[in-house]
Amino acid sequence: MKTRAGAILSAIRLDRDADRSLSVQLYMGLRDLILSGGVKPGERLPASRTLGAELGISRTTVIDAVDRLVAEGLLESRVGAGTFVSDALAQHAPVAALRKPRAAPVSPPRLSATTDHALKAFARRDRLPHTPKAFVTALPALDAFPMTHWARLYARHWRRNRDMIMGYGEPFGLERLRRAIAAHLQASRGITCDPAQIFIVGGAQQAFSLIARTLLDPGDAVWFENPGAIGARNALIAQGARLVAVDVDRDGLVVADGLAKAPDMRLAFVTPSHQQPLGHVMSLARRLELLKAADAAGALIVEDDYDGDFHHGSQPQPTLKSIDTNGRVIYVGTFSKSLYPALRLGFLLAPDGLVETFRDVFTCALSGVPTAPQAIVAEFMDEGLFATHIRQMRRLYKERYEGLVHHAARLSGFLDVEPATSGFHALARLGAGVDEHALVEAARARDVVLVPLSRYCLEPIARTGVVLGYGAVADKQIAAGVDILAGLTQQAA
Amino acid sequence: MKTRAGAILSAIRLDRDADRSLSVQLYMGLRDLILSGGVKPGERLPASRTLGAELGISRTTVIDAVDRLVAEGLLESRVGAGTFVSDALAQHAPVAALRKPRAAPVSPPRLSATTDHALKAFARRDRLPHTPKAFVTALPALDAFPMTHWARLYARHWRRNRDMIMGYGEPFGLERLRRAIAAHLQASRGITCDPAQIFIVGGAQQAFSLIARTLLDPGDAVWFENPGAIGARNALIAQGARLVAVDVDRDGLVVADGLAKAPDMRLAFVTPSHQQPLGHVMSLARRLELLKAADAAGALIVEDDYDGDFHHGSQPQPTLKSIDTNGRVIYVGTFSKSLYPALRLGFLLAPDGLVETFRDVFTCALSGVPTAPQAIVAEFMDEGLFATHIRQMRRLYKERYEGLVHHAARLSGFLDVEPATSGFHALARLGAGVDEHALVEAARARDVVLVPLSRYCLEPIARTGVVLGYGAVADKQIAAGVDILAGLTQQAA
Repeated sequence: MKTRAGAILSAIRLDRDADRSLSVQLYMGLRDLILSGGVKPGERLPASRTLGAELGISRTTVIDAVDRLVAEGLLESRVGAGTFVSDALAQHAPVAALRKPRAAPVSPPRLSATTDHALKAFARRDRLPHTPKAFVTALPALDAFPMTHWARLYARHWRRNRDMIMGYGEPFGLERLRRAIAAHLQASRGITCDPAQIFIVGGAQQAFSLIARTLLDPGDAVWFENPGAIGARNALIAQGARLVAVDVDRDGLVVADGLAKAPDMRLAFVTPSHQQPLGHVMSLARRLELLKAADAAGALIVEDDYDGDFHHGSQPQPTLKSIDTNGRVIYVGTFSKSLYPALRLGFLLAPDGLVETFRDVFTCALSGVPTAPQAIVAEFMDEGLFATHIRQMRRLYKERYEGLVHHAARLSGFLDVEPATSGFHALARLGAGVDEHALVEAARARDVVLVPLSRYCLEPIARTGVVLGYGAVADKQIAAGVDILAGLTQQAA
Repeated sequence: MKTRAGAILSAIRLDRDADRSLSVQLYMGLRDLILSGGVKPGERLPASRTLGAELGISRTTVIDAVDRLVAEGLLESRVGAGTFVSDALAQHAPVAALRKPRAAPVSPPRLSATTDHALKAFARRDRLPHTPKAFVTALPALDAFPMTHWARLYARHWRRNRDMIMGYGEPFGLERLRRAIAAHLQASRGITCDPAQIFIVGGAQQAFSLIARTLLDPGDAVWFENPGAIGARNALIAQGARLVAVDVDRDGLVVADGLAKAPDMRLAFVTPSHQQPLGHVMSLARRLELLKAADAAGALIVEDDYDGDFHHGSQPQPTLKSIDTNGRVIYVGTFSKSLYPALRLGFLLAPDGLVETFRDVFTCALSGVPTAPQAIVAEFMDEGLFATHIRQMRRLYKERYEGLVHHAARLSGFLDVEPATSGFHALARLGAGVDEHALVEAARARDVVLVPLSRYCLEPIARTGVVLGYGAVADKQIAAGVDILAGLTQQAA
């Protein structure tokens, strides 16, 4: 059975102006024709000379394409007889031509029960913040980053011994970085730990996922602050956790509420140094209550210390981990706020009882995070640049916060910024009659970012508010943002 | 109730030669004393002047430490009355002093059922390869990497607009990189796809985890090549998959064996371009059989194309994805072999039916991979440096392979290197009576790396062998490695 050159000629379009070589175009065209059943298993191809002549291309070009199809097994070369469409294809039901829209789309694959549920339960997230503008949250002062030092450390890095910087890295993260982090935690977060308890991850979000996977069975109860952190919430949902919305007041997580709702929790997720998003610091009494409740339930606590380095007061905020005497707390830190988000670097500090487990999981099932950013951050810390940067940012964020409060004074009664003691975002209460959603939308229309409090809520709460970031932009832009909001007040009035 | 200074003096050791400041030492000592119950809730601390005098340190140093403990809530300052151990601590059962070995270690936390099982089922992995030596596997030719270009691209990167390089990145990965990958797949792997189907991940291992989590419920059957890839195996086990060891022959995965063992598989994991570790290319007939079996079961196929760029023959190896007309194949690629492992960059190519699902998972539950390496690789590809590097490495690996075969000819009958057509490792058969384990250990003792075939086996197989990497070291080192093995032959003989 011989294929008429015509079938091929009519199906294949060659474009001399295309980026792809004529040979690749012919290869792709023939491949599609074969797989779509346009030429049948066992049919013989016209001789390369004939095909070349009719397509107006050189014989060599044809041979290139045909050889590739022979290598792929779609064509077979039979000595002295020519080239044939592979008989093996007879098993393969012809399908609509590749790369053409399918008449009926293939039904989507069945998902895991956990993912199926998660897709419905996820809090919607857009792309995370990346453009400094008033009042974007979660974005540090990119304008104040010591880029010259950073670029210098990178330039030096590429001159290092290639074995150290190019092969697979240390499974738990670079030893040198883990030592630097342990020293930092000691000096500024009151945490005494062994670097062996520290595991480097690609940002706090990965830590939350790993913790959930390691500790939770689908349906296990997790106490979660309501309102609370959106990313962590989704990481837990993705692993099948049953999130229990626990009230938060000025003293932090209301432990009694958690005990009433789910005394059998396996995990509690908290932000004790700076409640996300309300901004309160968890009281000592509440911390002790939480540790006691975890002890009683045999549960663990995830302490997300996302911006604890940037306390505005004269003394650092305490960490829950520093008073965790029974190994209940997994502390999670990130460099997204202290350095920058695109670095994707964070760590978890495992209590003694979990170190072996994480060592096994990290060695057997993960392949680590990139070496370069780890080495650079370790160097940055060891050279003292990190401590200096933190100190400077602490001052800067305090200034920017005070600027925000100063400018926003004119919004009083409409939008009142609450006291903030840490980090670089603050909650603002809304005046009576100010609609959270309408305000956020009106501001967005004028390119001012406000995050509605309701977005952080696992379950609806009575109060309303908006979260304002003040870390990413200079005072002038903060003032301009307030101006725009003031314009909205007048409209609303 | 007043605390005797003596209790404090006897418990606290200050070391003037220590790295930590005296104030931090005192803070830590007091904190431990309070949390361990050495001083009781409600007790009054001696005046700072008294304490300073008795400890032989300045009053300011004492005040620093005390202020910090007040900020943390462990001490309370009462105006006109002095400083007291916080009453809130009364709820807190005193525990053995922090940082001292516990008499009875706290019992380890309960793990998830999946993790509990996984820790027993994991294939043991050591730290992944990082030092070039004969015959390390999975490590490309670090010595031939164009580091000058690389460092130049990085230096330029840090001068870019900060908003683009420092904020949170694009959730599915840098658009520019995804476009470059799509073009590369088209040109060299025969895959036509839309960049929207590509999701950037932190290495193939993360892709396997994500795929497993998205598609598999605990206990779901996964066809897995036996022998097969160790990392992928563990990633699947970590998500609770039930791995079904499917035979592999010269034509690749024996589909009939899979159908006999688990016709209800949810997923099949294969390495069609270069079976890991046997090195065979999956035949077209087998590919079509596999696609048909997946169609019938409603299952998906993971195609791990870990080193497909480095085919030794004149034509590229085909990909399974390129003939996947029904959207059954998730293609996974990595830059660990084509660039270097410490980069931790890979991607998955989702079939149409899964794109929306992955978009949701990536947006809601992940926070992406670092921006810098993505931008650098995109630039590297766009500038044509990637294609050049691949071409040069293809030649180099061919040379190194031929060198290995040449040198190893003298080992014939003891260790026979099998034909390799791709990548940079090859399987060697062992002569009758040569013990796989003993050989590997004897070689290791002489700093020569051989990976025993049995390590790749989910279930024991009849044949023995060792895997030799030849990509990471120069011909001289390959020759020296063979010399050492020749020495072992004589011992064995």
